[in-house]
Amino acid sequence: MEEKKISSAVIRRLPRYYRYLGELIESGVQRISSKELSDRMKVTASQIRQDLNNFGGFGQQGYGYNVKYLYDEIGKILGIDRKHNMVIIGAGNLGQALVNSGDFAKRGFIIKGIFDNNKELEGKSVNGVSVMMMDNLKKFIKNNDIEIVALTLPKEAAREVAKDVCEAGITAIWNFAHTDLSLPEGVIVENVHLSESLMRLSYNIANKGNKN
Amino acid sequence: MEEKKISSAVIRRLPRYYRYLGELIESGVQRISSKELSDRMKVTASQIRQDLNNFGGFGQQGYGYNVKYLYDEIGKILGIDRKHNMVIIGAGNLGQALVNSGDFAKRGFIIKGIFDNNKELEGKSVNGVSVMMMDNLKKFIKNNDIEIVALTLPKEAAREVAKDVCEAGITAIWNFAHTDLSLPEGVIVENVHLSESLMRLSYNIANKGNKN
Repeated sequence: MEEKKISSAVIRRLPRYYRYLGELIESGVQRISSKELSDRMKVTASQIRQDLNNFGGFGQQGYGYNVKYLYDEIGKILGIDRKHNMVIIGAGNLGQALVNSGDFAKRGFIIKGIFDNNKELEGKSVNGVSVMMMDNLKKFIKNNDIEIVALTLPKEAAREVAKDVCEAGITAIWNFAHTDLSLPEGVIVENVHLSESLMRLSYNIANKGNKN
Repeated sequence: MEEKKISSAVIRRLPRYYRYLGELIESGVQRISSKELSDRMKVTASQIRQDLNNFGGFGQQGYGYNVKYLYDEIGKILGIDRKHNMVIIGAGNLGQALVNSGDFAKRGFIIKGIFDNNKELEGKSVNGVSVMMMDNLKKFIKNNDIEIVALTLPKEAAREVAKDVCEAGITAIWNFAHTDLSLPEGVIVENVHLSESLMRLSYNIANKGNKN
Protein backbone atom coordinates (compact mmCIF):
# COMPACT_ATOMS: atom_id res chain seq x y z
CA MET A 1 0.00 0.00 0.00
CA GLU A 2 1.38 3.41 -0.90
CA GLU A 3 2.51 5.79 1.83
CA LYS A 4 -0.14 8.30 2.77
CA LYS A 5 -0.43 10.74 5.62
CA ILE A 6 -3.26 9.77 7.96
CA SER A 7 -4.21 12.05 10.82
CA SER A 8 -3.76 10.86 14.38
CA ALA A 9 -7.47 11.36 15.06
CA VAL A 10 -8.29 8.87 12.31
CA ILE A 11 -5.67 6.47 13.67
CA ARG A 12 -7.31 6.58 17.09
CA ARG A 13 -10.62 5.58 15.54
CA LEU A 14 -9.23 2.74 13.41
CA PRO A 15 -9.36 -0.09 16.00
CA ARG A 16 -13.09 0.49 16.35
CA TYR A 17 -13.65 0.36 12.56
CA TYR A 18 -11.54 -2.77 12.51
CA ARG A 19 -13.73 -4.38 15.16
CA TYR A 20 -16.96 -3.54 13.35
CA LEU A 21 -15.64 -4.68 9.98
CA GLY A 22 -14.49 -7.94 11.61
CA GLU A 23 -18.00 -8.50 12.96
CA LEU A 24 -19.45 -7.84 9.51
CA ILE A 25 -17.12 -10.41 7.97
CA GLU A 26 -18.17 -12.94 10.62
CA SER A 27 -21.80 -12.35 9.68
CA GLY A 28 -21.01 -12.85 5.99
CA VAL A 29 -21.49 -9.23 4.91
CA GLN A 30 -19.39 -8.38 1.86
CA ARG A 31 -20.33 -4.78 1.14
CA ILE A 32 -21.75 -2.04 3.34
CA SER A 33 -22.80 1.54 2.70
CA SER A 34 -21.55 4.37 4.88
CA LYS A 35 -25.17 4.89 5.94
CA GLU A 36 -25.55 1.33 7.25
CA LEU A 37 -22.16 1.42 8.96
CA SER A 38 -23.10 4.78 10.44
CA ASP A 39 -26.28 3.33 11.95
CA ARG A 40 -24.35 0.47 13.51
CA MET A 41 -21.43 2.49 14.84
CA LYS A 42 -23.42 5.56 15.86
CA VAL A 43 -21.12 7.99 14.10
CA THR A 44 -22.19 10.20 11.20
CA ALA A 45 -22.02 8.77 7.68
CA SER A 46 -19.95 11.75 6.60
CA GLN A 47 -17.35 11.06 9.30
CA ILE A 48 -17.16 7.46 8.09
CA ARG A 49 -16.78 8.53 4.47
CA GLN A 50 -14.02 10.97 5.41
CA ASP A 51 -12.19 8.44 7.56
CA LEU A 52 -12.42 5.47 5.24
CA ASN A 53 -11.61 7.37 2.08
CA ASN A 54 -8.08 7.42 3.46
CA PHE A 55 -7.87 3.75 2.54
CA GLY A 56 -9.52 3.65 -0.84
CA GLY A 57 -11.76 0.61 -0.98
CA PHE A 58 -14.59 2.88 -2.07
CA GLY A 59 -16.58 1.10 -4.74
CA GLN A 60 -18.81 2.94 -7.15
CA GLN A 61 -21.43 5.22 -5.66
CA GLY A 62 -24.28 3.05 -4.41
CA TYR A 63 -22.16 -0.08 -4.03
CA GLY A 64 -20.73 0.77 -0.63
CA TYR A 65 -17.47 -0.44 0.86
CA ASN A 66 -15.79 -3.73 0.22
CA VAL A 67 -15.73 -4.98 3.82
CA LYS A 68 -12.88 -7.48 3.53
CA TYR A 69 -10.67 -5.09 1.58
CA LEU A 70 -11.10 -2.30 4.12
CA TYR A 71 -10.59 -4.70 7.01
CA ASP A 72 -7.29 -5.87 5.53
CA GLU A 73 -6.07 -2.36 4.72
CA ILE A 74 -6.84 -1.12 8.22
CA GLY A 75 -5.14 -4.21 9.64
CA LYS A 76 -1.99 -3.29 7.69
CA ILE A 77 -2.04 0.27 8.98
CA LEU A 78 -2.45 -1.04 12.54
CA GLY A 79 0.48 -3.40 12.06
CA ILE A 80 -1.62 -6.49 12.75
CA ASP A 81 -1.05 -8.06 9.36
CA ARG A 82 1.85 -9.86 11.05
CA LYS A 83 2.30 -11.72 14.35
CA HIS A 84 3.63 -10.14 17.54
CA ASN A 85 5.08 -12.33 20.25
CA MET A 86 4.22 -11.20 23.76
CA VAL A 87 4.89 -12.18 27.37
CA ILE A 88 2.82 -11.32 30.40
CA ILE A 89 4.65 -10.41 33.59
CA GLY A 90 2.54 -10.89 36.69
CA ALA A 91 0.48 -14.09 36.93
CA GLY A 92 -2.20 -12.68 39.21
CA ASN A 93 -5.84 -12.52 38.17
CA LEU A 94 -5.29 -9.79 35.62
CA GLY A 95 -2.31 -11.54 34.01
CA GLN A 96 -4.27 -14.78 33.87
CA ALA A 97 -7.26 -12.96 32.39
CA LEU A 98 -5.07 -11.73 29.53
CA VAL A 99 -3.69 -15.22 28.89
CA ASN A 100 -7.20 -16.69 28.92
CA SER A 101 -8.60 -14.19 26.44
CA GLY A 102 -8.72 -15.57 22.93
CA ASP A 103 -9.21 -12.12 21.43
CA PHE A 104 -5.54 -11.22 21.33
CA ALA A 105 -4.34 -14.35 19.52
CA LYS A 106 -7.07 -13.80 16.93
CA ARG A 107 -5.43 -10.46 16.13
CA GLY A 108 -1.93 -11.90 15.93
CA PHE A 109 -0.75 -11.15 19.47
CA ILE A 110 0.70 -14.47 20.58
CA ILE A 111 1.24 -14.94 24.30
CA LYS A 112 4.40 -17.01 24.51
CA GLY A 113 4.91 -16.96 28.25
CA ILE A 114 3.68 -15.74 31.62
CA PHE A 115 6.09 -14.87 34.43
CA ASP A 116 5.87 -14.30 38.15
CA ASN A 117 8.16 -14.43 41.15
CA ASN A 118 5.69 -16.36 43.30
CA LYS A 119 7.18 -19.86 43.60
CA GLU A 120 3.73 -21.31 44.28
CA LEU A 121 2.64 -20.43 40.76
CA GLU A 122 5.66 -22.02 39.07
CA GLY A 123 4.59 -24.47 36.36
CA LYS A 124 0.89 -23.67 36.75
CA SER A 125 -0.79 -23.98 33.37
CA VAL A 126 -2.89 -20.99 32.30
CA ASN A 127 -4.70 -21.67 29.04
CA GLY A 128 -1.87 -24.01 28.07
CA VAL A 129 0.89 -21.55 28.99
CA SER A 130 3.09 -22.48 31.97
CA VAL A 131 3.95 -19.87 34.57
CA MET A 132 7.73 -19.35 34.64
CA MET A 133 9.90 -17.68 37.24
CA MET A 134 11.38 -14.25 36.69
CA ASP A 135 15.00 -15.42 36.58
CA ASN A 136 14.27 -17.04 33.21
CA LEU A 137 12.78 -13.90 31.73
CA LYS A 138 15.70 -12.26 29.95
CA LYS A 139 16.80 -15.48 28.29
CA PHE A 140 13.23 -16.26 27.28
CA ILE A 141 12.82 -12.83 25.67
CA LYS A 142 15.95 -13.36 23.58
CA ASN A 143 15.23 -16.93 22.55
CA ASN A 144 11.58 -16.43 21.64
CA ASP A 145 11.69 -13.27 19.61
CA ILE A 146 9.49 -11.42 22.12
CA GLU A 147 8.40 -7.99 20.99
CA ILE A 148 5.80 -6.89 23.55
CA VAL A 149 5.82 -7.16 27.34
CA ALA A 150 2.57 -6.73 29.27
CA LEU A 151 3.02 -5.62 32.88
CA THR A 152 0.27 -6.76 35.22
CA LEU A 153 2.15 -5.98 38.41
CA PRO A 154 1.94 -3.55 41.32
CA LYS A 155 3.46 -0.20 40.43
CA GLU A 156 6.80 -0.48 42.25
CA ALA A 157 7.51 -3.88 40.72
CA ALA A 158 6.35 -2.66 37.30
CA ARG A 159 8.89 0.18 37.34
CA GLU A 160 11.76 -2.21 38.10
CA VAL A 161 10.72 -4.90 35.65
CA ALA A 162 10.18 -2.31 32.91
CA LYS A 163 13.82 -1.24 33.24
CA ASP A 164 15.01 -4.86 33.11
CA VAL A 165 13.07 -5.78 30.00
CA CYS A 166 14.24 -2.65 28.20
CA GLU A 167 17.80 -3.73 28.95
CA ALA A 168 16.89 -7.08 27.44
CA GLY A 169 15.95 -5.29 24.23
CA ILE A 170 12.18 -4.89 24.57
CA THR A 171 10.85 -1.72 22.95
CA ALA A 172 7.10 -2.10 23.44
CA ILE A 173 5.33 -2.25 26.81
CA TRP A 174 1.64 -2.70 27.55
CA ASN A 175 1.39 -1.26 31.04
CA PHE A 176 -1.47 -2.05 33.43
CA ALA A 177 0.32 -0.77 36.54
CA HIS A 178 -1.17 2.35 38.06
CA THR A 179 1.82 4.52 37.26
CA ASP A 180 3.56 6.15 34.29
CA LEU A 181 6.81 4.33 33.51
CA SER A 182 9.88 6.36 32.82
CA LEU A 183 11.69 4.54 30.05
CA PRO A 184 14.56 4.99 27.61
CA GLU A 185 13.84 6.97 24.45
CA GLY A 186 12.37 4.89 21.67
CA VAL A 187 10.46 2.54 23.96
CA ILE A 188 6.74 2.56 23.19
CA VAL A 189 4.29 2.36 26.07
CA GLU A 190 0.54 1.88 25.91
CA ASN A 191 -1.07 2.43 29.31
CA VAL A 192 -4.29 0.88 30.58
CA HIS A 193 -5.08 2.92 33.67
CA LEU A 194 -8.29 1.38 34.96
CA SER A 195 -8.75 3.82 37.83
CA GLU A 196 -8.67 6.69 35.36
CA SER A 197 -11.32 5.00 33.27
CA LEU A 198 -13.50 4.67 36.35
CA MET A 199 -12.99 8.35 37.18
CA ARG A 200 -14.17 9.31 33.69
CA LEU A 201 -17.28 7.25 34.36
CA SER A 202 -17.85 9.00 37.65
CA TYR A 203 -17.29 12.40 36.02
CA ASN A 204 -20.01 11.55 33.53
CA ILE A 205 -22.33 10.45 36.33
CA ALA A 206 -21.73 13.70 38.20
CA ASN A 207 -22.31 15.80 35.08
CA LYS A 208 -25.17 13.93 33.52
CA GLY A 209 -27.60 16.73 34.21
CA ASN A 210 -25.66 19.42 32.44
CA LYS A 211 -24.61 17.78 29.20
CA ASN A 212 -24.55 20.01 26.18
CA MET B 1 -17.51 25.17 44.24
CA GLU B 2 -18.97 27.64 41.77
CA GLU B 3 -20.09 26.45 38.34
CA LYS B 4 -17.49 26.99 35.70
CA LYS B 5 -17.20 25.74 32.14
CA ILE B 6 -14.26 23.38 31.76
CA SER B 7 -13.33 22.05 28.34
CA SER B 8 -13.65 18.36 27.62
CA ALA B 9 -9.94 18.15 26.77
CA VAL B 10 -9.10 19.34 30.28
CA ILE B 11 -11.58 16.88 31.75
CA ARG B 12 -9.87 14.02 29.92
CA ARG B 13 -6.55 15.00 31.48
CA LEU B 14 -7.88 15.40 35.04
CA PRO B 15 -7.57 11.78 36.23
CA ARG B 16 -3.87 11.90 35.47
CA TYR B 17 -3.40 15.14 37.43
CA TYR B 18 -5.38 13.57 40.23
CA ARG B 19 -3.08 10.56 40.28
CA TYR B 20 0.08 12.68 40.37
CA LEU B 21 -1.28 15.00 43.04
CA GLY B 22 -2.26 11.95 45.11
CA GLU B 23 1.30 10.62 44.86
CA LEU B 24 2.65 14.02 45.95
CA ILE B 25 0.37 14.00 49.00
CA GLU B 26 1.59 10.50 49.86
CA SER B 27 5.18 11.74 49.74
CA GLY B 28 4.33 14.67 52.00
CA VAL B 29 4.63 17.41 49.36
CA GLN B 30 2.41 20.41 50.16
CA ARG B 31 3.20 22.83 47.35
CA ILE B 32 4.56 22.32 43.87
CA SER B 33 5.48 24.67 41.05
CA SER B 34 4.17 24.12 37.54
CA LYS B 35 7.81 23.60 36.49
CA GLU B 36 8.34 20.72 38.94
CA LEU B 37 4.99 19.15 38.08
CA SER B 38 5.83 19.56 34.41
CA ASP B 39 9.11 17.65 34.86
CA ARG B 40 7.32 14.81 36.62
CA MET B 41 4.35 14.54 34.29
CA LYS B 42 6.25 15.23 31.07
CA VAL B 43 3.82 17.86 29.87
CA THR B 44 4.72 21.51 29.36
CA ALA B 45 4.53 23.87 32.32
CA SER B 46 2.31 26.19 30.31
CA GLN B 47 -0.19 23.39 29.64
CA ILE B 48 -0.26 22.65 33.37
CA ARG B 49 -0.80 26.32 34.22
CA GLN B 50 -3.60 26.60 31.70
CA ASP B 51 -5.28 23.40 32.89
CA LEU B 52 -5.00 23.97 36.62
CA ASN B 53 -5.96 27.63 36.53
CA ASN B 54 -9.46 26.31 35.90
CA PHE B 55 -9.55 25.30 39.54
CA GLY B 56 -7.95 28.25 41.27
CA GLY B 57 -5.60 26.95 43.93
CA PHE B 58 -2.91 29.11 42.38
CA GLY B 59 -0.90 30.64 45.20
CA GLN B 60 1.18 33.77 44.73
CA GLN B 61 3.75 33.71 41.97
CA GLY B 62 6.71 31.67 43.16
CA TYR B 63 4.73 29.71 45.75
CA GLY B 64 3.37 27.11 43.38
CA TYR B 65 0.19 25.11 43.78
CA ASN B 66 -1.40 23.96 47.01
CA VAL B 67 -1.33 20.23 46.33
CA LYS B 68 -4.09 19.15 48.72
CA TYR B 69 -6.44 21.93 47.63
CA LEU B 70 -6.04 21.10 43.93
CA TYR B 71 -6.41 17.38 44.64
CA ASP B 72 -9.69 17.98 46.45
CA GLU B 73 -11.06 20.36 43.82
CA ILE B 74 -10.26 17.94 41.01
CA GLY B 75 -11.81 15.13 43.05
CA LYS B 76 -15.04 17.15 43.26
CA ILE B 77 -15.09 17.77 39.51
CA LEU B 78 -14.55 14.06 38.90
CA GLY B 79 -17.39 13.19 41.26
CA ILE B 80 -15.16 11.16 43.56
CA ASP B 81 -15.74 13.31 46.61
CA ARG B 82 -18.53 10.85 47.40
CA LYS B 83 -18.83 7.07 47.41
CA HIS B 84 -20.16 5.01 44.49
CA ASN B 85 -21.46 1.51 45.10
CA MET B 86 -20.55 -0.95 42.38
CA VAL B 87 -21.11 -4.60 41.47
CA ILE B 88 -18.99 -6.74 39.18
CA ILE B 89 -20.78 -9.14 36.86
CA GLY B 90 -18.59 -12.00 35.72
CA ALA B 91 -16.41 -13.69 38.34
CA GLY B 92 -13.72 -14.88 35.94
CA ASN B 93 -10.12 -13.75 36.24
CA LEU B 94 -10.82 -10.22 35.14
CA GLY B 95 -13.77 -9.77 37.52
CA GLN B 96 -11.71 -11.17 40.36
CA ALA B 97 -8.81 -8.89 39.45
CA LEU B 98 -11.11 -5.87 39.81
CA VAL B 99 -12.38 -7.08 43.20
CA ASN B 100 -8.82 -7.69 44.39
CA SER B 101 -7.57 -4.25 43.39
CA GLY B 102 -7.47 -1.88 46.33
CA ASP B 103 -7.16 1.15 44.06
CA PHE B 104 -10.85 1.53 43.38
CA ALA B 105 -11.98 1.52 47.03
CA LYS B 106 -9.34 4.16 47.77
CA ARG B 107 -11.12 6.42 45.28
CA GLY B 108 -14.56 5.75 46.71
CA PHE B 109 -15.69 3.00 44.33
CA ILE B 110 -17.00 0.35 46.72
CA ILE B 111 -17.42 -3.14 45.30
CA LYS B 112 -20.50 -4.47 47.06
CA GLY B 113 -20.93 -7.73 45.19
CA ILE B 114 -19.67 -9.99 42.46
CA PHE B 115 -22.03 -12.11 40.37
CA ASP B 116 -21.75 -15.06 38.05
CA ASN B 117 -23.97 -17.84 36.72
CA ASN B 118 -21.38 -20.56 37.29
CA LYS B 119 -22.72 -22.60 40.23
CA GLU B 120 -19.20 -23.76 41.08
CA LEU B 121 -18.22 -20.24 42.03
CA GLU B 122 -21.23 -19.65 44.30
CA GLY B 123 -20.11 -18.45 47.73
CA LYS B 124 -16.43 -18.26 46.78
CA SER B 125 -14.83 -15.39 48.66
CA VAL B 126 -12.87 -12.91 46.55
CA ASN B 127 -11.11 -10.34 48.70
CA GLY B 128 -13.87 -10.76 51.29
CA VAL B 129 -16.71 -10.45 48.74
CA SER B 130 -18.81 -13.60 48.13
CA VAL B 131 -19.71 -14.61 44.61
CA MET B 132 -23.50 -14.55 44.20
CA MET B 133 -25.67 -16.10 41.55
CA MET B 134 -27.30 -13.98 38.83
CA ASP B 135 -30.86 -14.62 39.99
CA ASN B 136 -30.16 -12.44 43.04
CA LEU B 137 -28.82 -9.56 40.99
CA LYS B 138 -31.84 -7.32 40.49
CA LYS B 139 -32.85 -7.50 44.14
CA PHE B 140 -29.29 -6.85 45.25
CA ILE B 141 -29.05 -3.76 43.04
CA LYS B 142 -32.20 -2.32 44.58
CA ASN B 143 -31.37 -3.16 48.19
CA ASN B 144 -27.77 -1.95 48.12
CA ASP B 145 -28.05 1.35 46.37
CA ILE B 146 -25.86 0.17 43.49
CA GLU B 147 -24.93 2.88 41.02
CA ILE B 148 -22.31 1.28 38.76
CA VAL B 149 -22.24 -2.16 37.14
CA ALA B 150 -18.95 -3.50 35.75
CA LEU B 151 -19.37 -6.11 33.02
CA THR B 152 -16.52 -8.60 32.80
CA LEU B 153 -18.35 -11.05 30.60
CA PRO B 154 -18.17 -12.39 27.05
CA LYS B 155 -19.84 -10.04 24.60
CA GLU B 156 -23.10 -11.90 24.03
CA ALA B 157 -23.72 -12.25 27.76
CA ALA B 158 -22.70 -8.64 28.34
CA ARG B 159 -25.33 -7.38 25.91
CA GLU B 160 -28.09 -9.32 27.67
CA VAL B 161 -27.02 -8.47 31.19
CA ALA B 162 -26.64 -4.79 30.28
CA LYS B 163 -30.29 -4.70 29.27
CA ASP B 164 -31.35 -6.41 32.49
CA VAL B 165 -29.46 -4.08 34.78
CA CYS B 166 -30.78 -1.02 32.96
CA GLU B 167 -34.27 -2.34 33.61
CA ALA B 168 -33.28 -2.63 37.26
CA GLY B 169 -32.48 1.08 37.25
CA ILE B 170 -28.72 1.12 36.66
CA THR B 171 -27.56 4.15 34.66
CA ALA B 172 -23.78 3.67 34.67
CA ILE B 173 -21.94 0.74 33.11
CA TRP B 174 -18.23 0.02 33.06
CA ASN B 175 -17.94 -2.30 30.09
CA PHE B 176 -15.01 -4.65 29.54
CA ALA B 177 -16.76 -6.80 26.94
CA HIS B 178 -15.36 -6.55 23.45
CA THR B 179 -18.46 -4.90 22.02
CA ASP B 180 -20.31 -1.60 22.11
CA LEU B 181 -23.50 -1.92 24.12
CA SER B 182 -26.66 -0.45 22.76
CA LEU B 183 -28.48 1.00 25.74
CA PRO B 184 -31.42 3.22 26.62
CA GLU B 185 -30.83 6.96 26.42
CA GLY B 186 -29.34 8.44 29.57
CA VAL B 187 -27.30 5.35 30.45
CA ILE B 188 -23.61 6.19 30.73
CA VAL B 189 -21.09 3.68 29.44
CA GLU B 190 -17.34 3.73 29.86
CA ASN B 191 -15.67 1.11 27.69
CA VAL B 192 -12.37 -0.63 28.34
CA HIS B 193 -11.58 -2.28 25.02
CA LEU B 194 -8.29 -4.06 25.67
CA SER B 195 -7.85 -5.33 22.11
CA GLU B 196 -8.09 -1.78 20.83
CA SER B 197 -5.43 -0.69 23.27
CA LEU B 198 -3.17 -3.45 22.00
CA MET B 199 -3.81 -2.39 18.39
CA ARG B 200 -2.75 1.16 19.24
CA LEU B 201 0.45 -0.31 20.64
CA SER B 202 1.03 -2.30 17.47
CA TYR B 203 0.29 0.76 15.32
CA ASN B 204 3.00 2.62 17.22
CA ILE B 205 5.42 -0.27 16.76
CA ALA B 206 4.73 -0.33 13.02
CA ASN B 207 5.16 3.43 12.71
CA LYS B 208 8.07 4.00 15.04
CA GLY B 209 10.38 4.84 12.19
CA ASN B 210 8.30 7.62 10.73
CA LYS B 211 7.24 9.61 13.77
CA ASN B 212 7.07 13.35 13.30
